[in-house]
Amino acid sequence: MNNLKKLSLSLSVAATMLVAPMSFAQSALVFQSDFGDKDGAVSAMKGVSVGVDASLPIYDLTHEVPTFNIWEASYRLFQASKYWPEGTVFVSVVDPGVGTPRKSVVLKTKAGYYFVTPDNGTLTMIAEHQGIAEVREIDEKVNRLAGSADSYTFHGRDVYAYTGARLAAGAISFEEVGPKLPNQVVSIDYQHATVKDSTIDGNIPILDPQFGNVWTNIHQDLLKEAGIKLGDTLCVTVKDKDETVLDTKLPYLASFGKVNVGEPLIYVNSLLNVSLALNQSNFAAKHNIASGADWTIKFKECN
Amino acid sequence: MNNLKKLSLSLSVAATMLVAPMSFAQSALVFQSDFGDKDGAVSAMKGVSVGVDASLPIYDLTHEVPTFNIWEASYRLFQASKYWPEGTVFVSVVDPGVGTPRKSVVLKTKAGYYFVTPDNGTLTMIAEHQGIAEVREIDEKVNRLAGSADSYTFHGRDVYAYTGARLAAGAISFEEVGPKLPNQVVSIDYQHATVKDSTIDGNIPILDPQFGNVWTNIHQDLLKEAGIKLGDTLCVTVKDKDETVLDTKLPYLASFGKVNVGEPLIYVNSLLNVSLALNQSNFAAKHNIASGADWTIKFKECN
Amino acid sequence: MNNLKKLSLSLSVAATMLVAPMSFAQSALVFQSDFGDKDGAVSAMKGVSVGVDASLPIYDLTHEVPTFNIWEASYRLFQASKYWPEGTVFVSVVDPGVGTPRKSVVLKTKAGYYFVTPDNGTLTMIAEHQGIAEVREIDEKVNRLAGSADSYTFHGRDVYAYTGARLAAGAISFEEVGPKLPNQVVSIDYQHATVKDSTIDGNIPILDPQFGNVWTNIHQDLLKEAGIKLGDTLCVTVKDKDETVLDTKLPYLASFGKVNVGEPLIYVNSLLNVSLALNQSNFAAKHNIASGADWTIKFKECN
Repeated sequence: MNNLKKLSLSLSVAATMLVAPMSFAQSALVFQSDFGDKDGAVSAMKGVSVGVDASLPIYDLTHEVPTFNIWEASYRLFQASKYWPEGTVFVSVVDPGVGTPRKSVVLKTKAGYYFVTPDNGTLTMIAEHQGIAEVREIDEKVNRLAGSADSYTFHGRDVYAYTGARLAAGAISFEEVGPKLPNQVVSIDYQHATVKDSTIDGNIPILDPQFGNVWTNIHQDLLKEAGIKLGDTLCVTVKDKDETVLDTKLPYLASFGKVNVGEPLIYVNSLLNVSLALNQSNFAAKHNIASGADWTIKFKECN
Repeated sequence: MNNLKKLSLSLSVAATMLVAPMSFAQSALVFQSDFGDKDGAVSAMKGVSVGVDASLPIYDLTHEVPTFNIWEASYRLFQASKYWPEGTVFVSVVDPGVGTPRKSVVLKTKAGYYFVTPDNGTLTMIAEHQGIAEVREIDEKVNRLAGSADSYTFHGRDVYAYTGARLAAGAISFEEVGPKLPNQVVSIDYQHATVKDSTIDGNIPILDPQFGNVWTNIHQDLLKEAGIKLGDTLCVTVKDKDETVLDTKLPYLASFGKVNVGEPLIYVNSLLNVSLALNQSNFAAKHNIASGADWTIKFKECN
Repeated sequence: MNNLKKLSLSLSVAATMLVAPMSFAQSALVFQSDFGDKDGAVSAMKGVSVGVDASLPIYDLTHEVPTFNIWEASYRLFQASKYWPEGTVFVSVVDPGVGTPRKSVVLKTKAGYYFVTPDNGTLTMIAEHQGIAEVREIDEKVNRLAGSADSYTFHGRDVYAYTGARLAAGAISFEEVGPKLPNQVVSIDYQHATVKDSTIDGNIPILDPQFGNVWTNIHQDLLKEAGIKLGDTLCVTVKDKDETVLDTKLPYLASFGKVNVGEPLIYVNSLLNVSLALNQSNFAAKHNIASGADWTIKFKECN
């Protein structure tokens, strides 16, 4: 072996060592839960992740999902995930059934995102809107924090954070998560958006809680399909199951600033879905509107 | 080309590849908004930023600016930004006028910090205290998230996060933000701090909301100028516009521990401004004091 | 010097430059405080840290410790820290005595974790559960943010964040923090967990505030020692000092899902300590139970 070859070899080794901590297989790891920010639970999940790979880029979606609200967990993943790069690993822990036989899974979407979560309805929106490429059940015999076998109430830390971090770090492949399951997940039923005879029916999946805006699942394309255009006044009916909560007329406008402060409008929100707002005030609070699978909304041109 | 030259060349290429992802032009990216932490809006902004540069260091200032409160957005930037290193890029999104003709700008300060925001008053304090080096209007034809042209209500994600991330990552230069504007910004009017005949007049820009301390815009140097020293008792008058809310005597002391728990004092806060507190209790709540451009305060030695 | 040697030398220099910013001595820096998330205080601490080392990995434990609650600060460090890797530097700022003579210290545990904090009781649980390897007093002549000498009320930013960041970055060694102190810290007194004649006495250190579960300091091993097993019904008495707040019978079960929604159980929490809960409801609120050094709990088999 001549000097040049030896140098080349040692540099190659050095280069590997330099590259290793930068881990080109690394993806972002994004946490969501209903844990709030008052205790150490989220920090414990991140500590486990840093223990897997100290250079892993770790972020939050939200930890203020209302406690046990699987529906909103599902919606928040849908709302935010598509703005992250392909390959991002989301860990969502809203897990009222921890310690019961609900499955722990990783769903890979058709676009190449990963969702690590109990399969309890949390994947409803992601499966519908992004499409399932493959679902695998987490094999807890290998994908579980060492020393955590006696803990039955914090799979977020012991199983989901640990598995999500190993997947994001490239320490395991998707196949090494565990056995492949059928391409289906537990889904929550709700009113899908439809147009018929210029009437649009849909669901109020969620509020914009900071501003009190009421979001629907009706894409702006359905307004066009129903022949509705900017400037039109629409007749709007909101129901909680069978109870009518609001029955009113509202203008459809391009943005909040098109009406005076405190006045109502229909606008297209940041996900391009039809929404209701008061300019700089709280529409949902004023009209006692909440959200969820039971809430429906109807739009049509007024006569 | 001999072997040594080839090796040298290939190593040089390898080194470039190694260096590239570390991006020595990178600066910290710091987000502020009035979005709160309950939904996916902040996460969507961070996802866009990670999509621009997966290794970008991303932080938060606060997302709990009271909704639509441009004044407090301005103050929080002033309060925190100077503790960050030169070159840091701040993205502040308190944007009640989204969808109206307010300008989207990037301000570069004399010390080399960048502020990405709607020019709606958010830059009041930064322009005054740090000085404007240059202001540029964001050219949304090039500095806007691909595919977001139909979205009119979330420039925080589509324009500000995207532009801030590209600037912090070194993907665009400051000049590439867009055309240069005059060195001025929209500013909110308020009572500046002055001394006259041993009387100090100033503003209550903000509260320390967690502890209930009342902050002023009066630097400790003005106390010295007015001949006031530690241990003195001062006569204090607080007004909301023309209404007197508090008229009392308080001791000026070095720190909270100089009085018993629950007792009041005047102290110099972490920005070296004169402030009012109860030791381990809430001065603002006890005396119904709020803050903002309308709130004034007067200090003088008591007779 | 031949070409090969020159190349080798220059590559070695280049490698050093490449390695330098990755700082192999780096540890994670984790912040805790009672500052809340509404103002710029936490951000100022992080800005100082980024100024020390732009590539430092920075995380949060919680900033929602109740104001001035040193006891809960102590517990949160205990709860979360062990899930982080060895070498992690925790900065905890719950500091009602800022500006009084309480010492500023760094405690190194036997397992090699570092805790930067005022020595005011915050280290109670860490000292007891992790063991003290060494305590050093921060020498503020060298370990203090440049230009902060006039600030008396924010040591979190000026002393603790700065020192913690320098320690995590490897800019100073533990010895360079300042002079060695005796291996003891200020500790808060409380009821330790004991078993006697099949009766277990303990403390309610904290609640799980998001879910309303009541945590104790009684490890599951003490249940075994007292002869209690899954499925048993226990007689439970909770006291605030001498006042009995709850006296009831509860079943000891493996997880929440073993009872109907809204029903009570005794379970083992994520730290393997005995706890009380209602399945998907708030035990603490229903029974007016708080937590702290004054709260005690007694378990025994019912007759």
